[in-house]
Amino acid sequence: MSYELLLDHIKKTTALAQVSGLLGWDQETKMPSKGGAQRAEQMGAIEGVMHARRCDPRVAEWIAALDISALDAAAQVNVREAQKAYDTATKVPADLAEALARHAAKAQGIWAKARAAQNFADFAPTLGEMVNLKRQEAQARRVGDASLYDTLMDDYEPGMGSSEISALLGELRTGLVDLRGRIAGSGKVMPVLKGDFPKDRQMALARELPAIFGYDWQAGRMDIAVHPFCSGNGGDVRLTTRVDESNPFDCIYSTIHETGHGIYEQSIPGADRLEPAYSYASMGVHESQSRMMENQIGRSRAFAGHLFPLFKKHFGEIGVSNADDFHKAVNRVRSSYIRTESDEVHYNLHIMMRFDLERALIEGELEVEELEAAWNDRFEADFGVAVDCPANGVLQDVHWSVGLFGYFPTYSLGNLYAGEFFARMQADITGLDAMIAGADLAAPLEWLHRNVHEHGRMKAPGQLIEDVVGHKAGAAALLGYLNAKFGEIYGV
Amino acid sequence: MSYELLLDHIKKTTALAQVSGLLGWDQETKMPSKGGAQRAEQMGAIEGVMHARRCDPRVAEWIAALDISALDAAAQVNVREAQKAYDTATKVPADLAEALARHAAKAQGIWAKARAAQNFADFAPTLGEMVNLKRQEAQARRVGDASLYDTLMDDYEPGMGSSEISALLGELRTGLVDLRGRIAGSGKVMPVLKGDFPKDRQMALARELPAIFGYDWQAGRMDIAVHPFCSGNGGDVRLTTRVDESNPFDCIYSTIHETGHGIYEQSIPGADRLEPAYSYASMGVHESQSRMMENQIGRSRAFAGHLFPLFKKHFGEIGVSNADDFHKAVNRVRSSYIRTESDEVHYNLHIMMRFDLERALIEGELEVEELEAAWNDRFEADFGVAVDCPANGVLQDVHWSVGLFGYFPTYSLGNLYAGEFFARMQADITGLDAMIAGADLAAPLEWLHRNVHEHGRMKAPGQLIEDVVGHKAGAAALLGYLNAKFGEIYGV
Repeated sequence: MSYELLLDHIKKTTALAQVSGLLGWDQETKMPSKGGAQRAEQMGAIEGVMHARRCDPRVAEWIAALDISALDAAAQVNVREAQKAYDTATKVPADLAEALARHAAKAQGIWAKARAAQNFADFAPTLGEMVNLKRQEAQARRVGDASLYDTLMDDYEPGMGSSEISALLGELRTGLVDLRGRIAGSGKVMPVLKGDFPKDRQMALARELPAIFGYDWQAGRMDIAVHPFCSGNGGDVRLTTRVDESNPFDCIYSTIHETGHGIYEQSIPGADRLEPAYSYASMGVHESQSRMMENQIGRSRAFAGHLFPLFKKHFGEIGVSNADDFHKAVNRVRSSYIRTESDEVHYNLHIMMRFDLERALIEGELEVEELEAAWNDRFEADFGVAVDCPANGVLQDVHWSVGLFGYFPTYSLGNLYAGEFFARMQADITGLDAMIAGADLAAPLEWLHRNVHEHGRMKAPGQLIEDVVGHKAGAAALLGYLNAKFGEIYGV
Repeated sequence: MSYELLLDHIKKTTALAQVSGLLGWDQETKMPSKGGAQRAEQMGAIEGVMHARRCDPRVAEWIAALDISALDAAAQVNVREAQKAYDTATKVPADLAEALARHAAKAQGIWAKARAAQNFADFAPTLGEMVNLKRQEAQARRVGDASLYDTLMDDYEPGMGSSEISALLGELRTGLVDLRGRIAGSGKVMPVLKGDFPKDRQMALARELPAIFGYDWQAGRMDIAVHPFCSGNGGDVRLTTRVDESNPFDCIYSTIHETGHGIYEQSIPGADRLEPAYSYASMGVHESQSRMMENQIGRSRAFAGHLFPLFKKHFGEIGVSNADDFHKAVNRVRSSYIRTESDEVHYNLHIMMRFDLERALIEGELEVEELEAAWNDRFEADFGVAVDCPANGVLQDVHWSVGLFGYFPTYSLGNLYAGEFFARMQADITGLDAMIAGADLAAPLEWLHRNVHEHGRMKAPGQLIEDVVGHKAGAAALLGYLNAKFGEIYGV
């Protein structure tokens, strides 16, 4: 009986969290500019309600009255997640939780304005307050001698600490630096698209893509946002993308990336049940679904054979005349200021930089006033060019403005997991390349459903990956894929 | 001190009510079709939270501890509204409140499908359950010997009972039947638009209109919905409209109508403060703002001089060749199946019919199974033609599907109030007609701000009107306007 009461309580809290997600989606896609102050109050009110529900003393009583071993596996996961949310919530004072939600809603608008005005100083005090609030949150929540940063990161990738990430990223870094050096040494120059890429035609092409990757349009929609994201669960999973008229790849690969997130959310069995057991495994696993669709499949030579004629259909003359050259244009390697526009060789170097900077901010080793200079120094050292403006530098990502610290490393984990999953998928599915070339992804989608989606949160992320590939996630699979692909393209 | 605690409590509840409004807006405009079940859970969860907040025992304690006479006028209104919400909420059991919210979210989708399928029987059991739930609500809430229907109506038009409405509508009915008879006897036939009215061009024209009526696009947006509505407060007030490619007036006058609602919400000083004192006076007063913009101004000969060239610009050849004929086409009188497409002579006959039918449903004098036949009989008797299909009959309005019983009469009250306000405005503003002809509505908007908008909920609706026009609202002003206008157009 106490389980039914607990579950009803959990489900209503989950429904409210979905509402909070919808408010965020609306703010990014539909809300008029003068709605910001009101929205901040709304987010604060919802957050206050969820916080009160999560630390409702009845939750502890219901759990204490349970014989957990008598519950089925999904119920055990639900109880474990409720306990975790209760522990987290009871440690964070209600006024701090509300202040965080309200500040995030305001800060995002200030970030967007500072980004448009190319002025980090306009955003710095707001970011400073956010770091201050997140440090307070981490101090309130830390368990034992966990670092402040690890405390925050546990929200996104349970069981993964910054020392383990550092080791994984270190292994990856060595391989990437080596590959990048060989590519630079090749002296090869890849083709570049040239043509007219108006917004409407980019969106028309983009709207042809999600269904190829298994996305159900009756359970979703796609809109434009400054920073693309995917929002929602089960029957209502919304994609966003963005359009740069000088570079259609931005829109097209953002769309495929977010579609990868979207089909994961649409495919988890019981996703409409509002139970934690029937939700995604971790942010790293989530990102593996988007990155595999974007890169291992979307940027493959096989898929270029499908995408090249689509580009010709929508844009006419595009400056490359065959699928081979199109594939090379898609995979051109060069330093980019913008993480989300980066090629696969540079992408994780972006993440390593954010990981180090945000960890230093949260641990109190770097002041917000020093952040822009630290960013610019590190960027020039890692990428070989100087940052030309704040929108291409420290102001490019929305994450810190909404308090997402400890989230960036999940992007690299997603790439590592995608490398592991794809290597295994290639071994399991005969003729995978031909399927991708024909834009027939039924078999790889079935593989993903069976190996990843259908497990929801029933396994810890590390266990999920080990059960599929037979070993702990490492950098070898991703590096093997990158070396083979770019080795062939650049002849190195 | 107890007032500050009460006010903080009220404001968070108001913010949650705004969130609930946004969920409704999203459901009508953006939500994918498979999102309905999840949305019903979300609405139920939010309703449950608001219900618990409204009947929080601390509200009664805070109010009991107050010296109300020592508060300023706005604070007194806030306390009065909190007391009213508390009284209402403590009488409705939480499971009934949640069942209502959940049923409304589901029922709306079922109504939309039944309407598309032209089958009332598909909707009848759902409507039956809604009537059942609303009767339970009214039984729980009734004060003294108030009727069930009056109990529900008090939510929308405080202080107005069904006997007073019956008297007002009776007076109006006599005048309308007389006017309609004279128009029919005239034998005159008005011009009709003929042309090509594609959706995109209708929306392009529609988007030119709100700013004329004082709407601030930075504090709002406009989308398409099956049944147009206006949603939101202060800095985020959203319009919806709809498009019928065979009749552009539907889109254009829906837009002007909803803009009237929108500028009221945008113009109430302190609308972003989340306090009841700074909200609309009543639904009847709200409707007076939309109807005056739509009819007294939007359908005037003066405004036809502005609108006719706009139609020519967007649609080219439209079948009428001058503003006089355009004005006559706008004001063509004929029986229409659809309330929202009705001319000003027939519109209130629609309302009178819904008022009688819904009152009978709620009072238990009419069964849902009998509703379609009762509708069809009454329509043929009142309008002289038989209903041809359910979408043109009993399934045309969304209201009952979401539990809005007692709301329809506020439409006629809005028309009566608009008649009163406009007569007074004409007396107060010299050269009003020329201003309308020039689409310069600064003076009438200032008049509305000063006489209506800026009072928020500080006056009861009856008092608000009496203070502006010097007497209680009656039917004479509206009938005088209608007789003058249609007398001239039809020469009767």
